[in-house]
Amino acid sequence: MNAEWSLAPVAVPSEACMQAARRHQEQLTKPPGSLGELETIAIRLCGMQDRDRPGIDRVQITVFAADHGVAEEGVSAFPQAVTAEMVRNFARGGAAINVLARLLDATLEVINVGTAVDPGPLPGVVDCRIAPGTANFRRSPAMSRAQLERALQCGVEVAERVSLNGFDLFIGGEMGIANTTSASAIACALLKLPASAMAGPGTGLDAAGVQRKAVIINETLAHHRLAPNDVLGVLSHVGGFEIAALVGAYLRCAQLGVPVLVDGYISTVAALCAQRLSADVSAWFFYGHNSAEPGHRLVMEALGARPLLHLGMRLGEGSGAAVAVPLLRMACALHDQMATFAEAGVSGAL
Amino acid sequence: MNAEWSLAPVAVPSEACMQAARRHQEQLTKPPGSLGELETIAIRLCGMQDRDRPGIDRVQITVFAADHGVAEEGVSAFPQAVTAEMVRNFARGGAAINVLARLLDATLEVINVGTAVDPGPLPGVVDCRIAPGTANFRRSPAMSRAQLERALQCGVEVAERVSLNGFDLFIGGEMGIANTTSASAIACALLKLPASAMAGPGTGLDAAGVQRKAVIINETLAHHRLAPNDVLGVLSHVGGFEIAALVGAYLRCAQLGVPVLVDGYISTVAALCAQRLSADVSAWFFYGHNSAEPGHRLVMEALGARPLLHLGMRLGEGSGAAVAVPLLRMACALHDQMATFAEAGVSGAL
Repeated sequence: MNAEWSLAPVAVPSEACMQAARRHQEQLTKPPGSLGELETIAIRLCGMQDRDRPGIDRVQITVFAADHGVAEEGVSAFPQAVTAEMVRNFARGGAAINVLARLLDATLEVINVGTAVDPGPLPGVVDCRIAPGTANFRRSPAMSRAQLERALQCGVEVAERVSLNGFDLFIGGEMGIANTTSASAIACALLKLPASAMAGPGTGLDAAGVQRKAVIINETLAHHRLAPNDVLGVLSHVGGFEIAALVGAYLRCAQLGVPVLVDGYISTVAALCAQRLSADVSAWFFYGHNSAEPGHRLVMEALGARPLLHLGMRLGEGSGAAVAVPLLRMACALHDQMATFAEAGVSGAL
Repeated sequence: MNAEWSLAPVAVPSEACMQAARRHQEQLTKPPGSLGELETIAIRLCGMQDRDRPGIDRVQITVFAADHGVAEEGVSAFPQAVTAEMVRNFARGGAAINVLARLLDATLEVINVGTAVDPGPLPGVVDCRIAPGTANFRRSPAMSRAQLERALQCGVEVAERVSLNGFDLFIGGEMGIANTTSASAIACALLKLPASAMAGPGTGLDAAGVQRKAVIINETLAHHRLAPNDVLGVLSHVGGFEIAALVGAYLRCAQLGVPVLVDGYISTVAALCAQRLSADVSAWFFYGHNSAEPGHRLVMEALGARPLLHLGMRLGEGSGAAVAVPLLRMACALHDQMATFAEAGVSGAL
């Protein structure tokens, strides 16, 4: 990876602002620590935003969509046509992430990085198709190094716009039939785990389907013999365009100091890739939820990540992260607006 | 309990609306079940609201405040004066629940059912003081049966106003120094558990303080010898005015068909009392969060309740329930606004 951006250092949240925020939390009219994770969120955001009163007013949600050649192995409960069909659904405002973005007053954009079918020009959808889906990685590498660079670059450019436009938070989402298979293969390669530990039902495979998916992943990884520390090699062999775009977006957000709210299984695997490329990126990540996809827990553990929500969601599109946005906003409002013991004339602890 | 309201039956959510809602969820453009708990919330609300498209627009939050005689045994990390001081803080808008209510555009009222100190007339605070705190239950029953009836009635009247004014959701909160001691004593009596399993740090006791609290509860329960099925006997001997008011409010909401979002430890103990008085009330309850107070898990298990959030909060005031309100609103919006497979022209599962 020779792109100029890849050499930039990760930004460092302000330790002074976090210290001041911790002291402020101790003075608010509540037993110390009684707001739990909401206190941690507010303190971390103060550090990230380098200010005393954090805020999550402007939220950018970008959904990357792409197809996966491995879908022809029958690893999804849904046909491949659904990826482009869902891109049209996003454009018409009918998907879950559309509903959530409206409710949150968040900006939503969809970037087509490579659906198998061209859905044609659509409002709110940026056409950046790298190829009509990746190659079937059971037979050959999913993408070339040049294609991987283009996918990463696509995410990088999103992050640069998010930063330039002053958004307070970035959420990346994904849509791609068979992308839990790609994500599981990436996670198995990076974490040196067998596919039986990682593969799950995705959109709704039965037990036999999950087993078949695991066999395909194990055979593929045995064939490619990927080095766990060669993240870009892993991504090009078994990754997806939308996953690589998320990796680029996450890395660049961390370099530019934009807080990121990571979604579920696929997105967390992209976060793991970003973290393996540049360990310090984690300082910029919140994790929206614990996905029902069983492999998510393993990837979260590898990242030392704590999810905010446990709602049994497994939809993707950035939906699990979007559902967690109100928690960040409430954490900020509490930090900003609660009275201190002194202001309220309330007695402190005995 | 001879009050007229106590004989009314609990309302029954519409099974037909829940069935229709389940079918509708299966047609939305997402893998079946992939919205997890958000689907369950929407389906249950359809049944409670007896309509096809549920909504949580108007939310009423009522915080009941009262003092506890047992505070003189040193069972809290904060002095008893804090109860009335916090009532003043509520009136001035500086507490956590004020901040959350504003953010949620919820109606907040505070009812003083018995602070030890009279905080004087305050805007937004209803004065219903039954007594200047309960008696120290280590020495005598916390309240008389007549006082218990008044506290229950206070909650009943709140629920009747909530129903009459057409609110979509009721949240009950509480404030009362030493009320985790009262709540733990109630829970131990109803669930026949030793205090060592139930007592926790509350607002911040150390290990020795928790142990002392458990000893006081065990001695009290051994002395009073309360029957686990005599809920009103338990409430009058070791309860609190604000806890009894919550019991009345929860029961009456269930009778009048008002959805309830239960807060943390104290509130869940009140919900347990309501459920022991009238088993079917649970059909009207959502549980906002899993409190950091260790006994909460045991009470939730006894109710077969699943909390929506796990954020390590332990503040009370209704705050943990308030933080969960956006989840209910997002569940409703998704149910109402997502496109179906047919509308969006998206292929179904293979």
